[in-house]
Amino acid sequence: MRPAGDPIGELVELLSRLPSIGERTATRLAFHILKREPEYAKALGQALTDIHERVIRCEDCGNYGAEAKCKICSDIRRDPKIICVVAQVPDLVAIERSGTFRGRYHVLHGLLAPLDGVGPDRLPLDALEKRCESDVEEIVVATPLSVEGEATALYIKQVFAESKVQVSRIASGVPHGGELEFTDQVTLGRAFAGRKQI
Amino acid sequence: MRPAGDPIGELVELLSRLPSIGERTATRLAFHILKREPEYAKALGQALTDIHERVIRCEDCGNYGAEAKCKICSDIRRDPKIICVVAQVPDLVAIERSGTFRGRYHVLHGLLAPLDGVGPDRLPLDALEKRCESDVEEIVVATPLSVEGEATALYIKQVFAESKVQVSRIASGVPHGGELEFTDQVTLGRAFAGRKQI
Repeated sequence: MRPAGDPIGELVELLSRLPSIGERTATRLAFHILKREPEYAKALGQALTDIHERVIRCEDCGNYGAEAKCKICSDIRRDPKIICVVAQVPDLVAIERSGTFRGRYHVLHGLLAPLDGVGPDRLPLDALEKRCESDVEEIVVATPLSVEGEATALYIKQVFAESKVQVSRIASGVPHGGELEFTDQVTLGRAFAGRKQI
Repeated sequence: MRPAGDPIGELVELLSRLPSIGERTATRLAFHILKREPEYAKALGQALTDIHERVIRCEDCGNYGAEAKCKICSDIRRDPKIICVVAQVPDLVAIERSGTFRGRYHVLHGLLAPLDGVGPDRLPLDALEKRCESDVEEIVVATPLSVEGEATALYIKQVFAESKVQVSRIASGVPHGGELEFTDQVTLGRAFAGRKQI
């Protein structure tokens, strides 16, 4: 451990709090940054210092953006009839990268977790109901295929049970390129239960 | 690619310029930072913004520190008779971590590389000669065991050819735990050439 008042040690300590960055990687990054031109360190420092002020949650869907309405909600080419519910923005980014969905999103920024004290009131579900009062026809729940993700999906289904809005869930099964030999039992069970005629 | 004016995209772009951090890891880090309390992003931002001003090269040895003389050069318990020459500060850190050396250092911040236009005048060798005018008895050259590291070691040997200062080179051989089966020919050659009676 480097003592306090040591600028490299402080930088290493802060960097090593990032996920998947241990002390050794953090040290390597710090020395790399020191070796480069000071402009780079300043630009990265500024970007980090400002990030929480500059990034705004979209008032409609909760996606991150630089303005009150995110790029997807402002895009009139996106289908307003279908909303995809995701747990967090990186999931939205992954779906966008796949180019598979042309509707709009609703970001929960969390999942139901009663044991951790996260009840339905902590998720923006009122906002989702409000959005569905207009011409929304379908909600695709794309929360993770985990216990909490499934519980959240079921809860959303209940919320809209009396509504005209259809609630669907993304398919679960053997992933693309997946070897059956190495696929877990739950996934195989889902793959069989969800089988389709070809 | 995210368009300009997008704060997350800018942060991802800057983070992905770091070594071993691709766009995907940078995206994950950016979202992690956004999810955490703003104080962390600000502290890391500040540490990066200030790093080049706060880190000073030691006027004696070139090591990084917060003052004009580094911690090792100011430490009177370190043996002033022996100087270890390293290419870069991370090498010094690795040697310090091993606890194997109790002398002082001389950091070249580079290696001889005539093809890249790095001649002896670009390395702080005058300063090394100056330091050796006092009571230095030995220089241990701990530059890498690469072509450039070896060339630099040989050059330093020549510089001190007429001097009373002994120039030595760290040993080269099969590393600790190394399997002979998977050791390259050059290393095996060095291991045999450097063999010692036991």
